[in-house]
Amino acid sequence: MTTTDLRIDIDRLLHRLHALGEVGALPGGGVCRLALGDEDRRGRDLVRGWMDELGLRVSIDPIGNVVGVWPGAEDGPPVLTGSHIDTVRTGGLYDGNLGVLAGLEVIETLQEAGVALRRPLAVAFFTNEEGARFAPDMMGSLVFVGALSVEEARATVGIEGATVGGELDRIGYAGTAPPMPVHAYVELHVEQGPVLEREGVQIGVVQGVQGISWTEFTVHGVSNHAGTTPLALRHDAGLVAGSMVAFVRRLAREIGGDQIATVGRLRLHPDLVNVIPNRATFTVDLRNTDEAALQQAEARVHAEVEALARAEGCTVEHRPLARFEPVAFDRGVVDRVEAAARELGLSTRRMPSGAGHDAQMLARICPAAMIFVPSVGGISHNVKEHTEPADLEAGANVLLRVLSDLAS
Amino acid sequence: MTTTDLRIDIDRLLHRLHALGEVGALPGGGVCRLALGDEDRRGRDLVRGWMDELGLRVSIDPIGNVVGVWPGAEDGPPVLTGSHIDTVRTGGLYDGNLGVLAGLEVIETLQEAGVALRRPLAVAFFTNEEGARFAPDMMGSLVFVGALSVEEARATVGIEGATVGGELDRIGYAGTAPPMPVHAYVELHVEQGPVLEREGVQIGVVQGVQGISWTEFTVHGVSNHAGTTPLALRHDAGLVAGSMVAFVRRLAREIGGDQIATVGRLRLHPDLVNVIPNRATFTVDLRNTDEAALQQAEARVHAEVEALARAEGCTVEHRPLARFEPVAFDRGVVDRVEAAARELGLSTRRMPSGAGHDAQMLARICPAAMIFVPSVGGISHNVKEHTEPADLEAGANVLLRVLSDLAS
Repeated sequence: MTTTDLRIDIDRLLHRLHALGEVGALPGGGVCRLALGDEDRRGRDLVRGWMDELGLRVSIDPIGNVVGVWPGAEDGPPVLTGSHIDTVRTGGLYDGNLGVLAGLEVIETLQEAGVALRRPLAVAFFTNEEGARFAPDMMGSLVFVGALSVEEARATVGIEGATVGGELDRIGYAGTAPPMPVHAYVELHVEQGPVLEREGVQIGVVQGVQGISWTEFTVHGVSNHAGTTPLALRHDAGLVAGSMVAFVRRLAREIGGDQIATVGRLRLHPDLVNVIPNRATFTVDLRNTDEAALQQAEARVHAEVEALARAEGCTVEHRPLARFEPVAFDRGVVDRVEAAARELGLSTRRMPSGAGHDAQMLARICPAAMIFVPSVGGISHNVKEHTEPADLEAGANVLLRVLSDLAS
Repeated sequence: MTTTDLRIDIDRLLHRLHALGEVGALPGGGVCRLALGDEDRRGRDLVRGWMDELGLRVSIDPIGNVVGVWPGAEDGPPVLTGSHIDTVRTGGLYDGNLGVLAGLEVIETLQEAGVALRRPLAVAFFTNEEGARFAPDMMGSLVFVGALSVEEARATVGIEGATVGGELDRIGYAGTAPPMPVHAYVELHVEQGPVLEREGVQIGVVQGVQGISWTEFTVHGVSNHAGTTPLALRHDAGLVAGSMVAFVRRLAREIGGDQIATVGRLRLHPDLVNVIPNRATFTVDLRNTDEAALQQAEARVHAEVEALARAEGCTVEHRPLARFEPVAFDRGVVDRVEAAARELGLSTRRMPSGAGHDAQMLARICPAAMIFVPSVGGISHNVKEHTEPADLEAGANVLLRVLSDLAS
């Protein structure tokens, strides 16, 4: 039997997804396993137990990243797959978990078929990908690739005051494994967006991750009585903010391509029906796969808010909240993903990832790419997150094929 | 000495304004005397004491309106002046208080000069004009003119659970005076807006009160990931709300005249930087002295929000918060105010009131008008509220002259 005829066992994969989903399960469905909390520890223990059952060599590094390695015929850096098992407060069963458990399923499928690969094949789950309890997100993979020091990561204080280091020690996941070279990295993930479902496409061939620019703007005006202050004498901070909400949508349409723009947060002060707002705070989230276009969008947002504020006699200040350049995945690995899907008779679509993933960190140290499967309704970070079993199966089979190729 | 040569004593008026301002004084300046609270009782007792000292016949009606009548040579309905002495939580020394204490000052000036008027002259302070603790505002004058029943007013529950009736009984201001016919009503008030100061005008001749239309709109969209949801697939409730903020300003400019429009309150849900808002709630405050124009503005706001929601695949619902038709003051009394100011050598400007005042309720039962004096910086409902003594004096002298005319 050649590896091209192999298929993963969807029932076994679903069984593991549901078993892990019971750890930290929420009453109405969904799951809450915030990074390094007690539920995360129980989830880690469960997945580690499965790694042991598959005979993987499990190592834990100082930030709590867990890697299970299945040795190959030759030594050398492993072909790595994986993702994360921490969740947001109202998370689903698939975000992150799918990539980790599909990795185990691929190894079990290969082991059952008696396949021996040339290179080691490994499955990782990275610490605190979500950033829901400790900032920044993708912390484990950032440390894994050497972009964030263990000391700095351990010192991070979470939303309720505990530190990453303290929690790692408490749950027993502060390991000692040294940095690990990686031959290539492929991550299977749910799309978390509506594109694949909307277009009826089975596999998203992820070419890269959009660059992200988050800025918080605060406009300062003057509060006055909404009934006694003529229009010409107003300094309405809310008007500047509201106009910017409309502007960023126009801007994104105008720039076109992958450009998207969102005002997700907006607050007025004093927020009273008959008082002209003296302060408006809002965020602008800009994303593009092209760094030059992203910079152009940023410049136009700043120019527009300054012009609007000036016209209204307001002042404006801004605070950068996050900035990541776009990441382009390795063309060779991306092509392999596309080829594997097509060989399996699956429809494909090249696309960027709009969300951040551990794969973008791994791309700094090795050829990397991602495989997306459809999210029903595009819903994620929500207890209603769902992906159909047939799509989970298709994605895992693509992963099986790509990992087998890379490790042969 | 004829009454036209009389002038009020600004020092005596200032003394009373400051004495009343010490009741419920805030540490950093300003005052808090919420309607029917302990500070309001102490303020009422103080002003009532002054009425007693001037020999006025004091009556208290069932909603706690207090009227001090100085008898005239003939019986019959009094010429009434007044305002309110309750304040907002961070109120100033002049809003309301000026109209009441200037009324007392006018009577004391006339008494000292030995003037005997034909008609009774009376000063009132009306209960709960501000509405800061109990809704609606202008409650006392609403009951005074028979537009709200005592029973309904007493049953009103305030922001911390107490009722108007319970508080009236507790502070001893539930009186028994029967409804009082009024010959004419004139109210002196600070402008609470920037127009007089900006134009260097001393006296605002108030022709009426703007009609007010307050509506709360709630737009329902769909929350989705700001990074993974293409523009074309969004149902962004925040975009509709933001676009409306910009629209109402354009609309007010386009309608012109007295039309003003404000979005003072706006909230997004879930209000997160990287989540498309699935709900946006905002208020629209429209004001115009012309009822037809106000209705046109309302219709255009509704049409625009419906169109914007439809274009974004959102739905919208609305809830009326308040609606008052414009009030036109009595031409005869308005003309007298203007003439009196000019005879005193004061500059005048005819203008509408953008805020609500007890005078608009009194206008339902008698000829009524108002006199405005400048507010420094247009600031009101704020501890920084200020009017220059020279302007207080000018306003009170106009009041003296108009009341003397009306009562002769």
